[in-house]
Amino acid sequence: MARHILKNTCLLQSNSNLKLFICRMQSLVASKLIYSQYGEPSKVLQRVDEELGNLERNEILIKMLAAPVNPADINTIQGTYAVKPELPAVGGNEGVGEVINVGSDVTKFSLGDRVVPLVNALGTWRSHLIVTEKNILKVPKELGLVEAATITVNPATAYRMLKDFVTLKENDVVIQNGANSACGQYVVQLCKAWGVVSVNIVRNRPNIEDLKTYLKQLGAHYVLTEEELRQSTLFKSKTVPRPKLSLNCVGGKCATELMRQLAPGGTMVTYGGMSREPVTVATSALIFKDIRVVGYWMTRWSNVNADSPERFKMYEELIDLMKDGRLRGPAFQFVEFDDFKTAINNTLSAKGMVGKKYILQFK
Amino acid sequence: MARHILKNTCLLQSNSNLKLFICRMQSLVASKLIYSQYGEPSKVLQRVDEELGNLERNEILIKMLAAPVNPADINTIQGTYAVKPELPAVGGNEGVGEVINVGSDVTKFSLGDRVVPLVNALGTWRSHLIVTEKNILKVPKELGLVEAATITVNPATAYRMLKDFVTLKENDVVIQNGANSACGQYVVQLCKAWGVVSVNIVRNRPNIEDLKTYLKQLGAHYVLTEEELRQSTLFKSKTVPRPKLSLNCVGGKCATELMRQLAPGGTMVTYGGMSREPVTVATSALIFKDIRVVGYWMTRWSNVNADSPERFKMYEELIDLMKDGRLRGPAFQFVEFDDFKTAINNTLSAKGMVGKKYILQFK
Repeated sequence: MARHILKNTCLLQSNSNLKLFICRMQSLVASKLIYSQYGEPSKVLQRVDEELGNLERNEILIKMLAAPVNPADINTIQGTYAVKPELPAVGGNEGVGEVINVGSDVTKFSLGDRVVPLVNALGTWRSHLIVTEKNILKVPKELGLVEAATITVNPATAYRMLKDFVTLKENDVVIQNGANSACGQYVVQLCKAWGVVSVNIVRNRPNIEDLKTYLKQLGAHYVLTEEELRQSTLFKSKTVPRPKLSLNCVGGKCATELMRQLAPGGTMVTYGGMSREPVTVATSALIFKDIRVVGYWMTRWSNVNADSPERFKMYEELIDLMKDGRLRGPAFQFVEFDDFKTAINNTLSAKGMVGKKYILQFK
Repeated sequence: MARHILKNTCLLQSNSNLKLFICRMQSLVASKLIYSQYGEPSKVLQRVDEELGNLERNEILIKMLAAPVNPADINTIQGTYAVKPELPAVGGNEGVGEVINVGSDVTKFSLGDRVVPLVNALGTWRSHLIVTEKNILKVPKELGLVEAATITVNPATAYRMLKDFVTLKENDVVIQNGANSACGQYVVQLCKAWGVVSVNIVRNRPNIEDLKTYLKQLGAHYVLTEEELRQSTLFKSKTVPRPKLSLNCVGGKCATELMRQLAPGGTMVTYGGMSREPVTVATSALIFKDIRVVGYWMTRWSNVNADSPERFKMYEELIDLMKDGRLRGPAFQFVEFDDFKTAINNTLSAKGMVGKKYILQFK
């Protein structure tokens, strides 16, 4: 459908109902990163410019401000992810933008509002996005740009995994591997905020003490390497109770070790498989120790709970924690939109102490 | 505490409250199979005769009629099971007996009642058993001796696994391996009784067609060997919907294959590990397919639900199904109590098409 893209430069705003009346418009050229076939992002992604059409009465025009490159975004383009968008598709799954125009039927959003997408795979790697009211969530302007741009995946995943599988009371214990991952860092901080003890497992590395210090500053109670966990008497000595919950983004032996430490009746939630090895569970752990092995996928939860009050309560709590500084965004680096290949390549070859987000920034 | 064992031979029974008055008693010698150390049952089990003491006012004297040798009973004596009774202990976990005397405070049981033990590890390999009211369940006399003697483990396990993990509606599908095991046969029959489709996996063997016929006669909808399952298009072709539930008593590759066939959101319940291999779960099955991997142990359920209405409802339903012939007991062979070593050795070296129960019979 050919539509004229319009940018309003003059507005009359009714104070009573916030309806906006556009008095002068000019056409707007938007840029987006599309792919028409699955493959390596640096090869298949193309920047395309297009003139945006008129807004429908129920539509909202958003100027994107920042959009991260998440590993799952790359896997989606590679065609190896569980989400396979219809092609051609626009890359990117989350981000933050500013409302710059609204159709006449839009009542819940006003010019200048900061918003994040509420639906998966909207395609956020673009300068402008047209959505309807139910597809976006307003976030406060005092929220950092990075926190806002990355709120729907990692912090939400950490929040749900800590909330939805076992009931954690104060001083209960959670154990996780990949604790230095983007999601792992939110687990550390949410545990700290909620009075839950976190035991954090990381791979050994030359600068291990720096990493331990970093995670402890975030709120980690214990940080151990995989080898240290194997020899640890932390639980045997009853220094802390055995964990009710373990969060696994590694798989293989590291997941088995996490399971071994669980309290009877404990749950292991898998949300990643960085080792590329499956999760192996001893029959006796299932039968006699009543260990439950489950998975978590943010995309599924969001689809199932699209309009649930629980979802909006979660964002409210996350935003409050972010606003008062108890939940900090990940290590990040802004990359200009034009330089998207750098952001993708750096994400693919990610090294360093903690997961760093490369975040596309739009002019 | 030294007690005189009494056997009543003459009773006056009050019709109003069923209180029993013992007018003449004589001492009774009971036999039991005890072990004072863990080890091979044929070596550590000893028959011991003892004179039973007086009944307390709240006690019930039971003459055992039949008690099966279950694999878990053997593992318990070997010291390799999750239940480790205080030694010396009496072997055996289930069975059926007849009330032959009751203390003056006993109101719920009368002479001649058929009863099964409701608590684990009471030690049923003995000619006589003294219990209190809450430790036994009355079962109707028209129930077969074998069905009654084996009701608390295998049929109860099958019942709970089909009830407690997913909600099965008519025509829903359950897949299980080890379908010819004692528990597997109850799964087949309960599925049939409840209108649930069972897909039954068994190991290939020379007389495979006989086994298929046997299980189909029990009510199995489909019987496939492990190899046939791998190549089957039963689910792909949508002949039947994918299973919501899989029941695993094998582990290893066979469990992985069962999981692969599950519907998204499906649950695999492990209750045995005959292959001695662990359960391996693909990370993607956990995250993207939302497969849940859990375990079931009848002993834990019974302990947790000792007095729950759900437990008595279960026995009532199982007994009703058994009485009207829709739930048949396992293949079995009675063995004289004195010949207990034969029963144990035959259980240990079990061969044949379907699991056969060796059941101790008391004179």
